[in-house]
Amino acid sequence: MHIPVRIVLVETSHPGNIGAAARAMKTMGLTDLTLVAPKHFPSAQASALAAGADDLLGRARVASTLVDAIGDCGFVAGATARLRSLRWPVMDPRQCAQAIWRHVPETQTAIVLGPEQSGLTNDDLGSCRALVHIPTNPEFGSLNLAMAVQVLCYELRMTKAAWAEPLTEQRGAPPATAAELEGFYVHLERVLADAKFLHPAHQKQLKLKLRRLFQRAHLDQNEVNILRGAVAALDPTGRSGGEESA
Amino acid sequence: MHIPVRIVLVETSHPGNIGAAARAMKTMGLTDLTLVAPKHFPSAQASALAAGADDLLGRARVASTLVDAIGDCGFVAGATARLRSLRWPVMDPRQCAQAIWRHVPETQTAIVLGPEQSGLTNDDLGSCRALVHIPTNPEFGSLNLAMAVQVLCYELRMTKAAWAEPLTEQRGAPPATAAELEGFYVHLERVLADAKFLHPAHQKQLKLKLRRLFQRAHLDQNEVNILRGAVAALDPTGRSGGEESA
Repeated sequence: MHIPVRIVLVETSHPGNIGAAARAMKTMGLTDLTLVAPKHFPSAQASALAAGADDLLGRARVASTLVDAIGDCGFVAGATARLRSLRWPVMDPRQCAQAIWRHVPETQTAIVLGPEQSGLTNDDLGSCRALVHIPTNPEFGSLNLAMAVQVLCYELRMTKAAWAEPLTEQRGAPPATAAELEGFYVHLERVLADAKFLHPAHQKQLKLKLRRLFQRAHLDQNEVNILRGAVAALDPTGRSGGEESA
Repeated sequence: MHIPVRIVLVETSHPGNIGAAARAMKTMGLTDLTLVAPKHFPSAQASALAAGADDLLGRARVASTLVDAIGDCGFVAGATARLRSLRWPVMDPRQCAQAIWRHVPETQTAIVLGPEQSGLTNDDLGSCRALVHIPTNPEFGSLNLAMAVQVLCYELRMTKAAWAEPLTEQRGAPPATAAELEGFYVHLERVLADAKFLHPAHQKQLKLKLRRLFQRAHLDQNEVNILRGAVAALDPTGRSGGEESA
């Protein structure tokens, strides 16, 4: 799943952050990185931290102004660490991802992040359609730039995936049938009775508890066979054969 | 909003990742960091990358084994980069956050992440209730360890913020802790070995399958007691006392 959203980093100070941002983008399926007036680029440190995402750095576009970087975009979200009193719509990363995917079919989209220390200026924000704010600890909002890119790109991928196919559960064998489960329960109960663990006075309650906990495990056929093998091996009477009936 | 979820990093190689993970945690309101056999800790590089979250490093607990690190936990999710074919429930970070918040009112919870290169072993996963997988680009799944911590903690914060009231699960007894489960597993495995059900040639695989199916059942403390009673009653050696240790 390729995610055709541009990430724009404005006046980034630390080249390591550019590399780490490229890596974060690539893990989530984004490839379009644009740098506005980076302090140091290209840079060996950026390449080192890209850790296999240096193809994104090689293709990164360097622009001199933000307007140049997003000139072709019909929807631009600007990241802000502060909840400004400006009258822009402020979205969380999930709302931002939803807004972007609504626009993807019809236009180029971008998310813009400012310099590490100061963030985007109000002028920069004037070029954005909306603000995106990552919720943080009010006492420690020091989110690293590449970490912010990771979270924003993660939400783009999650939101897109939620519209595709639901995940299916991994199973090694078909689920056990009710009859197979019943066969196991009856076998287990017989052996536990012979071992004097189930006493007539309270066996009904105990049997129910045991059945309930195994029901919750959603056993498959292979697992029922393993459990029956274990019960047979522990049978104090030695009466467990391959054919103990339900 | 304090988020009382423990992050456990197992055998981390690069101390910088420990520092960056601490910073990621603190931005999202988490404070409980536990390190299992870190390669280098304490470390100046960890403190440098913590960038203001060094209080978390100062309070971090260093444990020698995973079981020790999560002994008091009633819900543990293990991070995996691969979608393994094992039959554990695999959740995405959002589902993981929802599951954790359901358990927070009644028990300690944790998310466990493995070494940078190899991830958690199957044995480690045997101590986890569920797996959490961060969806990534199939062609480039190289998510940095601290980035993974950032995404997982972000989802914990987002999910909590989305809820007015935490959901609570109906339960008869508190969930079994990891230490209680470990005690049951060790007891069960000893008895099955004495009954010649576990053979050296394939016991590792079988043990794992048994642990996995019981993990899925979300056992509570009462149920673990019932199962230990049943195992003791079936012990062919008669050695199961009330005090069989884990």
